[in-house]
Amino acid sequence: MVNNSQHPYIKDGWFREINDKSFPGQAFTMTVDSILYEARSEFQDILIFRNKVYGTVLVLDGIVQCTEFDEFAYQEMITHIAMFAHSNPKRVLIIGGGDGGVLREVAKHSCVEDITMVEIDSSVIELSRKFLPTLSNGAFDDERLDLKLCDGFKFLQDIGASDVHKKFDVIITDSSDPEGPAEAFFQERYFELLKDALNPNGVVIMQSSENFWLNLKYLHDLKNTAKKVFPNTEYCYTMVPTYTSGQLGLIVCSNNANIPLNIPQRKISEQEQGKLKYYNPQIHSSAFVLPTWADKVINE
Amino acid sequence: MVNNSQHPYIKDGWFREINDKSFPGQAFTMTVDSILYEARSEFQDILIFRNKVYGTVLVLDGIVQCTEFDEFAYQEMITHIAMFAHSNPKRVLIIGGGDGGVLREVAKHSCVEDITMVEIDSSVIELSRKFLPTLSNGAFDDERLDLKLCDGFKFLQDIGASDVHKKFDVIITDSSDPEGPAEAFFQERYFELLKDALNPNGVVIMQSSENFWLNLKYLHDLKNTAKKVFPNTEYCYTMVPTYTSGQLGLIVCSNNANIPLNIPQRKISEQEQGKLKYYNPQIHSSAFVLPTWADKVINE
Repeated sequence: MVNNSQHPYIKDGWFREINDKSFPGQAFTMTVDSILYEARSEFQDILIFRNKVYGTVLVLDGIVQCTEFDEFAYQEMITHIAMFAHSNPKRVLIIGGGDGGVLREVAKHSCVEDITMVEIDSSVIELSRKFLPTLSNGAFDDERLDLKLCDGFKFLQDIGASDVHKKFDVIITDSSDPEGPAEAFFQERYFELLKDALNPNGVVIMQSSENFWLNLKYLHDLKNTAKKVFPNTEYCYTMVPTYTSGQLGLIVCSNNANIPLNIPQRKISEQEQGKLKYYNPQIHSSAFVLPTWADKVINE
Repeated sequence: MVNNSQHPYIKDGWFREINDKSFPGQAFTMTVDSILYEARSEFQDILIFRNKVYGTVLVLDGIVQCTEFDEFAYQEMITHIAMFAHSNPKRVLIIGGGDGGVLREVAKHSCVEDITMVEIDSSVIELSRKFLPTLSNGAFDDERLDLKLCDGFKFLQDIGASDVHKKFDVIITDSSDPEGPAEAFFQERYFELLKDALNPNGVVIMQSSENFWLNLKYLHDLKNTAKKVFPNTEYCYTMVPTYTSGQLGLIVCSNNANIPLNIPQRKISEQEQGKLKYYNPQIHSSAFVLPTWADKVINE
């Protein structure tokens, strides 16, 4: 166990996700068997360590992004809820997602013809490929991938100004939390840019950075911000033990008000289901079911 | 913040739920604003403290039992899944549940005529009534309650040997984890005693002490132990942020193989729904939906 790290989030051999702004008074903690990497990139603080239960753990600006053991719960749900809420997604855009997990999941859909991925921090891609190779699992070599190393917000502005750019069927925002380089991804202007980049039956999904135990008011406001732009906006969630409260909310939207986003719009084949560890059509729908008090605040 | 407690689970002002046997390598932690009570009862170590987010926190043998802020997620789900899986529950038995939360929820059902509660540790009842009065919320004064201060296992043995004792429609085992005084509640003989104490369409539910992230093999084995005794056995779960992984599994069983336990067997009235903060008929059903990999191990 690591006992003498100078890293501010590690004490007495324990990584402690202490964040007075986002979740005061509580912290999930993990023992640190060894530190694989610690440095500051141009954009954020990066820490990668080993834990005996969760395997390799990626931490950005003190917040757990993913662990080897439970990453599929996030990657599969943020990807496949959007991908199966669309009847035939051919062109997919990933904003962020530098660890490669969402890319790996999108690439499992044989109907997909083009994948554009826009990541601002190339060091997250490089470090994830080196220390967490099962996250991308070779998907960075997929022939359908067009990888762009730039700011996702600016990318959307640029294609919005261009008449020739083809629009997308599914857009997945796999960003870090709003405190940091991803701040703009949680504001109304961003939803407008997403809407402009989307085909008529298109679906967008984003991580909400909160869950219903942590900050209901924020989720209510974020959903209503999305609702100003998209006539069809829903909240759902996935369960991840290394995220605060053991779950993370997702906001999913469509321009088409008639698509029930909580119901898969195409049948999953046996071959497709065989590639998935977490997602299935039943959990797609149940991810939209909330406890009464949370439902009242978020959805009413 | 408490900085100088001698309590073994408190260090530098943080309560740390460290347990090398049940969940090695990880620990949920909370700041301790003040300690309200700490002592050893005849049966277990009891700690009650205040946290600025979760309010009053009850800890038995180092494991968080409930907090003021999130207790309803556990109390409502373990109670109402069983109560609504029965079409007309009149006689209810609670094994454990000394904090009074399950009793409070059972008492909300006007169809209930008798409630028997069997708690081994009277100090848990006394301390909860004093420090966590909203848990029982006056339910210990309910005229339908017959409170017995004795061992639940022995109580079931005794009524099994008695011909005159009326059987129960719903039995709820709200115990602590198997490491400690509740050990016998997780073994085949206990399920046999439950079966003997149950009316033909009766329903039993128990906390499983684990969740699908922590110990899938244990849940598979526990469910199969129950299945040896009950033809109808299901796994479901509730989401509680102060429990490890943010969720806790429940085992629900019936003698009647034809009752779909995942579907409420009676309509919830508007008045009944108005008293509930977490449970609703939709979340009753979705609590039985598992991620694919967990479903395969627990249910196949």
